[in-house]
Amino acid sequence: MDESARAAAAAMDAADPLADRRALFRLPEDVVYLDGNSLGALPLAAERRIAEAVSGEWGESLIRSWNAHGWLDLPARTGDRIARLIGAAPGSTLCCDSTSINIFKLLAAALAMRPGRDVILSERGNFPTDLHVAEGLLGLIGRGRLHLVARADIAGALGPEVAVAMLTQVDYRSGCRLDLDETTRAVHDAGAVMLWDLAHSAGAFRVDLATSRAEFAVGCGYKYLNGGPGAPAFAYVRPDLADDVAPALSGWMGHAAPFDFEPGYRPAPGVDRLRVGTPPILSMTALHAALEAFEGVDMAQVEAKGRALVDFFIAEVERLAPPGALSLVSPRDGARRGPQAAFATPNGYAVMQTLIADGVIGDFRAPDILRFGFAPLYTRFVDAAQAAALLADILATGRWDRPGNHVRAAVT
Amino acid sequence: MDESARAAAAAMDAADPLADRRALFRLPEDVVYLDGNSLGALPLAAERRIAEAVSGEWGESLIRSWNAHGWLDLPARTGDRIARLIGAAPGSTLCCDSTSINIFKLLAAALAMRPGRDVILSERGNFPTDLHVAEGLLGLIGRGRLHLVARADIAGALGPEVAVAMLTQVDYRSGCRLDLDETTRAVHDAGAVMLWDLAHSAGAFRVDLATSRAEFAVGCGYKYLNGGPGAPAFAYVRPDLADDVAPALSGWMGHAAPFDFEPGYRPAPGVDRLRVGTPPILSMTALHAALEAFEGVDMAQVEAKGRALVDFFIAEVERLAPPGALSLVSPRDGARRGPQAAFATPNGYAVMQTLIADGVIGDFRAPDILRFGFAPLYTRFVDAAQAAALLADILATGRWDRPGNHVRAAVT
Repeated sequence: MDESARAAAAAMDAADPLADRRALFRLPEDVVYLDGNSLGALPLAAERRIAEAVSGEWGESLIRSWNAHGWLDLPARTGDRIARLIGAAPGSTLCCDSTSINIFKLLAAALAMRPGRDVILSERGNFPTDLHVAEGLLGLIGRGRLHLVARADIAGALGPEVAVAMLTQVDYRSGCRLDLDETTRAVHDAGAVMLWDLAHSAGAFRVDLATSRAEFAVGCGYKYLNGGPGAPAFAYVRPDLADDVAPALSGWMGHAAPFDFEPGYRPAPGVDRLRVGTPPILSMTALHAALEAFEGVDMAQVEAKGRALVDFFIAEVERLAPPGALSLVSPRDGARRGPQAAFATPNGYAVMQTLIADGVIGDFRAPDILRFGFAPLYTRFVDAAQAAALLADILATGRWDRPGNHVRAAVT
Repeated sequence: MDESARAAAAAMDAADPLADRRALFRLPEDVVYLDGNSLGALPLAAERRIAEAVSGEWGESLIRSWNAHGWLDLPARTGDRIARLIGAAPGSTLCCDSTSINIFKLLAAALAMRPGRDVILSERGNFPTDLHVAEGLLGLIGRGRLHLVARADIAGALGPEVAVAMLTQVDYRSGCRLDLDETTRAVHDAGAVMLWDLAHSAGAFRVDLATSRAEFAVGCGYKYLNGGPGAPAFAYVRPDLADDVAPALSGWMGHAAPFDFEPGYRPAPGVDRLRVGTPPILSMTALHAALEAFEGVDMAQVEAKGRALVDFFIAEVERLAPPGALSLVSPRDGARRGPQAAFATPNGYAVMQTLIADGVIGDFRAPDILRFGFAPLYTRFVDAAQAAALLADILATGRWDRPGNHVRAAVT
């Protein structure tokens, strides 16, 4: 890395109003971690709290912890911490289950709200689990169909038969971001229900969910929210609808009076009815604590930093890489992008493996995409500079083309 | 407690072939814990492993842990440890989601196997979540009905319209246990599918699931398996059926090739197709490690000890308590019972609160039931003796009848 790039990066880090956040995370010394959009880094608060929850709460208080340590309302309390980050009102967001399961719940609710319509509209390039869940639900109820279009064709596909549009705001490969308000408005104008997947949005940039008037949203706890591997997900229901949603996945924790052990189901008021079984308290405790890293943080600053990091990374890569060695897949306009950069390059898989072996962790998405995530809370401009320089060097020297380096990478 | 009872208990503890297991758990000094059927105690291995998984795996290896630390197949590896405890073949049992969610998956699969029948038969006294889930599923698919009968009337209710019998082997209040073979045979003779809920069976006594030929089973990770609060549950599919089950909850982790990111769903071979979203690795790691406490343990010994503990407890309570103060709700015959004892008594709630305040933790189930669980791996005969003596003393002195002692207890 040349000195001028390093100096520029260091100056941006020195001016970064979020620079103090990095100290809240445990990050390995020898790694530049650009995969926080797949698995967020470990917040020290999560490490500390989970140890307390295991030894102190489970070990010492045992069953009494459900009340004594607030396990019972942990899903609501964690949901409230997430709500602030996505522009949602307290009480509108619940932490529960996985993103996939939550999509199932809310897709079923959306279809029930539009009995005369039977199409679920989505993108062909949506993250597969969203599509798989829709397919399973339609198969189960024995009616309706999933209509998949390219991102550019969504607006044109909104017709009177569309019950619900299920869209992921940020494309998991390219980082391309849909405008929340504009898209929701188009969906509403067509009379359909809006279900957002905010997996790559929550904690990544400013989201004003309430303003958009979208009916439903889900999202992921283990990406930018840093809740740990397989952290529970979240589900949002627009408050005016929450008491009318009939849960398709109705379990005792979503009952109005779970400890009265009634044989008949009566949904709890509001979004609590989306609870199903007993929540994974240890994993949820990690997420709840992880969210402390966002306390006092202005999401507009998070968004600005993410955009600046990616702008800088793209500029450095394009400045340093051999001409024609790669091409930008992500939108160049930061307003149309999540905080990630994707480049297409031949031999992308081997290139990424070499990067990882050399200490820069991004990931690879078939067929040829290098994906780099810039989680704004803990990624520095010097990380972006170092990663760009290494990537350019690997491409220039062709040293990705060595054997024995092709361990299969895993997990979005 | 009188000396002869203490001596008898101590002698039984000394002769207990499982006595060494208690040292594998962290148990508070000042408590007799008889609620392991609600939340199992903390195994030291779980405490150790979860710290490693947080700091070493998540913190240091980050995303690489999916391969490097076996997160990807943790559901299958955990399922295999559970399989041994329930008499199931390796590869037949998956650790995933919650018991409620797993009931949904397998009820949907069962209904699909009997297209000409539309009744789900269950018990009126079943644990409510099982019934709620069935109600939600039937509402979603818009056909079928849930037929609820008393336990004694199950056999008589098995008719040609019953698609599936969904039964919990051990009643969560009384501990009354159904015979797995006999019940499954009756259900099969009526042409229906058998779905067992083994929430209060797995890890509690010997279960021979494969021998019973039941099609499906689910169970809980946080009771006798000691996986921690809200630990993931398990699902079993009889191996000859596993490749034919069409998952209603179809998510990317149950896809045949999850990392190929195909838009269309193709189920994974076998029980892996019951995976949905990304599993809660931290909670599942705790369960996986907790199961080490069963390594080398003969489940027939676990069953024998559980029976002996409860027999001894019942005898002591009945010997010491004031005549007429309480009545046994659990079966007196240990072969017809899980390792728990339930007594009905007026003012049961206040009595249980007093017991808890005095260091004996059981739980209360409306309207009037004191419930005591005797997890065989870590409960001693001296614990049973001490609890019986304290209960008798509370009933004899009437000191449950004091104010300010009525904090609401929670969670089954």
